[in-house]
Amino acid sequence: MTVRFGVIGTGAIGREHINRITNTLSGGRIVAVTDVNQKAAREVVETFGLDAVVYPDDTSLIADTNVDAVLVTSWGPAHEGSVLKAIDAGKYVFCEKPLATTEEGCMRIVEAEMKHGKRLVQVGFMRRYDSGYVQLKDALDRNEAGEPLMIYCAHRNPDVDEKYTTDMAITDTLVHEIDVLHWLVNDDYQSVQVIFPKRTKRALDHLRDPQVIIFETKTGMHISVEVFVNCKFGYDIQCEVVCEEGTLKLPDVSGVVMKKEGRQGSTLLMDWKRRFIDAYDKELQDFMDSIQASGEPQGPTAWDGYIAATTADACVRAQQSGQRETIASADKPDFYA
Amino acid sequence: MTVRFGVIGTGAIGREHINRITNTLSGGRIVAVTDVNQKAAREVVETFGLDAVVYPDDTSLIADTNVDAVLVTSWGPAHEGSVLKAIDAGKYVFCEKPLATTEEGCMRIVEAEMKHGKRLVQVGFMRRYDSGYVQLKDALDRNEAGEPLMIYCAHRNPDVDEKYTTDMAITDTLVHEIDVLHWLVNDDYQSVQVIFPKRTKRALDHLRDPQVIIFETKTGMHISVEVFVNCKFGYDIQCEVVCEEGTLKLPDVSGVVMKKEGRQGSTLLMDWKRRFIDAYDKELQDFMDSIQASGEPQGPTAWDGYIAATTADACVRAQQSGQRETIASADKPDFYA
Amino acid sequence: MTVRFGVIGTGAIGREHINRITNTLSGGRIVAVTDVNQKAAREVVETFGLDAVVYPDDTSLIADTNVDAVLVTSWGPAHEGSVLKAIDAGKYVFCEKPLATTEEGCMRIVEAEMKHGKRLVQVGFMRRYDSGYVQLKDALDRNEAGEPLMIYCAHRNPDVDEKYTTDMAITDTLVHEIDVLHWLVNDDYQSVQVIFPKRTKRALDHLRDPQVIIFETKTGMHISVEVFVNCKFGYDIQCEVVCEEGTLKLPDVSGVVMKKEGRQGSTLLMDWKRRFIDAYDKELQDFMDSIQASGEPQGPTAWDGYIAATTADACVRAQQSGQRETIASADKPDFYA
Amino acid sequence: MTVRFGVIGTGAIGREHINRITNTLSGGRIVAVTDVNQKAAREVVETFGLDAVVYPDDTSLIADTNVDAVLVTSWGPAHEGSVLKAIDAGKYVFCEKPLATTEEGCMRIVEAEMKHGKRLVQVGFMRRYDSGYVQLKDALDRNEAGEPLMIYCAHRNPDVDEKYTTDMAITDTLVHEIDVLHWLVNDDYQSVQVIFPKRTKRALDHLRDPQVIIFETKTGMHISVEVFVNCKFGYDIQCEVVCEEGTLKLPDVSGVVMKKEGRQGSTLLMDWKRRFIDAYDKELQDFMDSIQASGEPQGPTAWDGYIAATTADACVRAQQSGQRETIASADKPDFYA
Repeated sequence: MTVRFGVIGTGAIGREHINRITNTLSGGRIVAVTDVNQKAAREVVETFGLDAVVYPDDTSLIADTNVDAVLVTSWGPAHEGSVLKAIDAGKYVFCEKPLATTEEGCMRIVEAEMKHGKRLVQVGFMRRYDSGYVQLKDALDRNEAGEPLMIYCAHRNPDVDEKYTTDMAITDTLVHEIDVLHWLVNDDYQSVQVIFPKRTKRALDHLRDPQVIIFETKTGMHISVEVFVNCKFGYDIQCEVVCEEGTLKLPDVSGVVMKKEGRQGSTLLMDWKRRFIDAYDKELQDFMDSIQASGEPQGPTAWDGYIAATTADACVRAQQSGQRETIASADKPDFYA
Repeated sequence: MTVRFGVIGTGAIGREHINRITNTLSGGRIVAVTDVNQKAAREVVETFGLDAVVYPDDTSLIADTNVDAVLVTSWGPAHEGSVLKAIDAGKYVFCEKPLATTEEGCMRIVEAEMKHGKRLVQVGFMRRYDSGYVQLKDALDRNEAGEPLMIYCAHRNPDVDEKYTTDMAITDTLVHEIDVLHWLVNDDYQSVQVIFPKRTKRALDHLRDPQVIIFETKTGMHISVEVFVNCKFGYDIQCEVVCEEGTLKLPDVSGVVMKKEGRQGSTLLMDWKRRFIDAYDKELQDFMDSIQASGEPQGPTAWDGYIAATTADACVRAQQSGQRETIASADKPDFYA
Repeated sequence: MTVRFGVIGTGAIGREHINRITNTLSGGRIVAVTDVNQKAAREVVETFGLDAVVYPDDTSLIADTNVDAVLVTSWGPAHEGSVLKAIDAGKYVFCEKPLATTEEGCMRIVEAEMKHGKRLVQVGFMRRYDSGYVQLKDALDRNEAGEPLMIYCAHRNPDVDEKYTTDMAITDTLVHEIDVLHWLVNDDYQSVQVIFPKRTKRALDHLRDPQVIIFETKTGMHISVEVFVNCKFGYDIQCEVVCEEGTLKLPDVSGVVMKKEGRQGSTLLMDWKRRFIDAYDKELQDFMDSIQASGEPQGPTAWDGYIAATTADACVRAQQSGQRETIASADKPDFYA
Repeated sequence: MTVRFGVIGTGAIGREHINRITNTLSGGRIVAVTDVNQKAAREVVETFGLDAVVYPDDTSLIADTNVDAVLVTSWGPAHEGSVLKAIDAGKYVFCEKPLATTEEGCMRIVEAEMKHGKRLVQVGFMRRYDSGYVQLKDALDRNEAGEPLMIYCAHRNPDVDEKYTTDMAITDTLVHEIDVLHWLVNDDYQSVQVIFPKRTKRALDHLRDPQVIIFETKTGMHISVEVFVNCKFGYDIQCEVVCEEGTLKLPDVSGVVMKKEGRQGSTLLMDWKRRFIDAYDKELQDFMDSIQASGEPQGPTAWDGYIAATTADACVRAQQSGQRETIASADKPDFYA
């Protein structure tokens, strides 16, 4: 059986997923597309040689009985509406982050999905599919180094464009750590504090960069995440978990070690896409495989999307207040246990 | 367009490729299978839910006009016959190593392919698709460390079964280095010498293990390869190229670094399949993609299969003689340039 | 010329320094010793075969005209008195930490030394002599990675004895980072906050362990130091400086890399003495050499001892208050520039 | 007690040892010097402010009853004579390599020392004192990875001056591996073969560079040593021992890890002196300490000097013959067990 996808939003990310499903992965096919820019939608069909209907809007695309699953890759504010319609139609949804732009919007999706009665939605938090994080998660789940007490992370980009604002350090960048860390250690966020160290001269004037976000979890774990989006030297993702019996560190990307001119070392990635390219492939393949195997996607859920939203909200408040802010997420429903 | 495969040989490797094409990769489909054990062939169709015809032999399978490409995964001595028939029928061939069990057999395939007039055959030397070797090749091709002078390799397995004999260290194990090294440095093998160091007590009595194989290339490069198939500690592939301006080392597989109980370190693979699993996927995907893109496979050629055969022959002679043996390969035809 | 030492305090650390000067280093000689336990002092003379006078107290030892320099290795509360007497007598002083147990005591020493008119005192902060920190300092001074913005440190011990209390995490453990970090980046501490993560079950009940101490410097740098004294796995000192153009990391202690039983890695030190044994040798050799070369010790000064005291005081207040505490050190006199 | 040294040869190495004994180490003093260039000898006394007699020749220096030990740092061909005279006078000898320039000369020293009845001579093979090799030796002696089967080494210099000839790759460079490897694995050399790979264009015309020297030991171990003295990129010493249960690798020199401009890595040493500076200190300190503790030096013996000579001779023969050459050392006398 093939999963037949309708794609809502044929911008850059949408096209990448279309290419992935069409030319790299197994078990899926694009049968419908839509975009607010209809011309773009038609061009995508041509470019990738798709046998797909171009719809005028998400509503008509979702209504197509040939569409098994919807890929939501429109701009953020449009996500909630499309996801709710898809759930209403009983269609599977793979939704890029954010699930919705507000906590309340995420909760509406959660409630709709619970009302529907089985999981339909997977959120595009691809790090859970990165082989490094998977190995780290395995080691933690096997309790190899004892109970985790502290986590140190860094999320560093060489640079960002001028549209990137101080709060986007949370909503666009930190959001990946927000998702992956609570999954790693099976814990919930309790409170957050944001520290603004000395600014780098390499950032544009309107941007506070770097930032250090410090979480406390419900069980008392200490988590420190550096977000540094003008670090210049590379795209660098670090994560170390300090446990009661030892420490566990996310593997670095391996590369050819060269000795030359008095130095030894290897290249760093400059581009986030290459860092997680395998994870992007795996999250979509898993979405298709788990739908076929169990009738439900097994990846990050609508609830994880809700947690990301409430946590990010508190982080932005902490940026503004300079104080420790409480993260008041609702209790996790059994539905998502 | 979909590449329609006929599979000759549904043993372990055949089934893995069938699974890969059916459930992981994009652009291929199994439409026919055969095996000397017809029952096994039928079971494979059922297991993987294939829409495929079961043929009594390779001849009838190759004759099926629905078959675009043949996957040769039968036992070694049968390869040559199937490959020659496929070429004769103008079908594409993906053939697991060895291309043929003799130098002469390989040459007959080379000549048949040249007579046919375009490349049809790809040999299953997957290391060329491993991201580590690809990075190493890129660095060499960019001349990052100057001209290569020496290469040190190790090919270590935790253990082997009792059927593994001293010459299989060449034909089953070293053969991967034989293929990948001349590709890495664009050079040809000139002569070879085999040294038998002190035997490990962990090998069975009939087996000389470890072995060190020392090549000289046509341009004078020194290559040393350790084959150690009862090394116990892990599956470990090493390759370092010493050049005029510096050295380049194949990246190790990265893993979670743990500090615990007075040690820091990471796990090693114990299983060769996991080491090259991505490379197996990529070689077949590339076979399909390049056929579709250019009408010819772009991977290791029948000529590479011939080079592997002549080189392995000389290595086995060197095992027996204790002397430096000349590797008398024919000159490379322009067809394979 | 030989520096003739009088040693005040012949406990464990005193004996190590006596051994060092007598049997390892060049240019020094022990000519006098004293200890509140006179028997211990006499035994030391015998054990090391010293040609040294045993004095009843620090006053008489300092008065000995044969004594060029005083080594203060008595218990902490006695340091201030001995140091002040030595300065009064115009003798050089090598004083183990703490210089004095109070901020006011350190300031009295600073003022006495300034009044004397040249530097006499070196405080035993040995990390500045560790080759790793020296390399890190060199890289920072050469501005190799641009201006420093953030520092992440960890100070981990396998375990501590039952006398170790929560405030000793500051005064005994963190004090080494307090000294070495402001020296590394030529900055001063502005404020401090202490976070108590989830306690390890491996600590005794009276001890909060681990702790995370977060500094802001005068120029706005962010510094995070984990103190974890029951980490079990090893003695582990980490320091990474994130700068505007790149990052610089304190080298790990190198060790034999072993591959065995599916793992590769190296041993960690379990014992802090081995980690800094070379630094202990070098600090005393430098004390002697610089006195001979320039007439003044060149190592950590009485002012550094004062900074350590005021900073540690603020850290202990921050442990108790749970708030960010200001570090109100006096302005650095030109004398120590 | 202080070891009183007479120094024969006040060239570069002689001056370094004089400086070491005078200003760095403990327990030694220079009381006499001589050099064929008497002016140089007098200048050394002045430069280092020595209280030392300048003698016209080795004979008169050795005869000085104030001289306990002789430091032989003259040019190679003069070593044998000075060492024999010192043994004859019952003086301790620290002799830089070579002990003598011929196998026969070394044997004469061995026989003289045995006749004297206790060890007097230590040869300046400093690598045995390098902390990396010491750790490797400890791991091998504890049998951590099982019985050693193969060793891979590299000895790389950035460049050499024009006086450096092809045979000096053996006598000046490889000689350090010759000494340290048989000590590491407690084995003796059986035969040797030399391979000349493709020449680097960076070497002067008269020099074959690099070279690969391949030993077989008496127990059958395989040892491969690359000597590459125009490698350009750094001073690089590698040694990996492959054993029955695992591998053990000489630690690399650790340095600050920098991430910058798309690369991560650390600096390499360019200068051999810095690589083994601690080992030079330790070998002389051990010479003095062991004389004082046991009346005999404990370092590399005259026998080790003999083994180095016979092995180097065979290597030079193998350079010339292109054949495997037998290394015909005498059996080790019990005196050196």
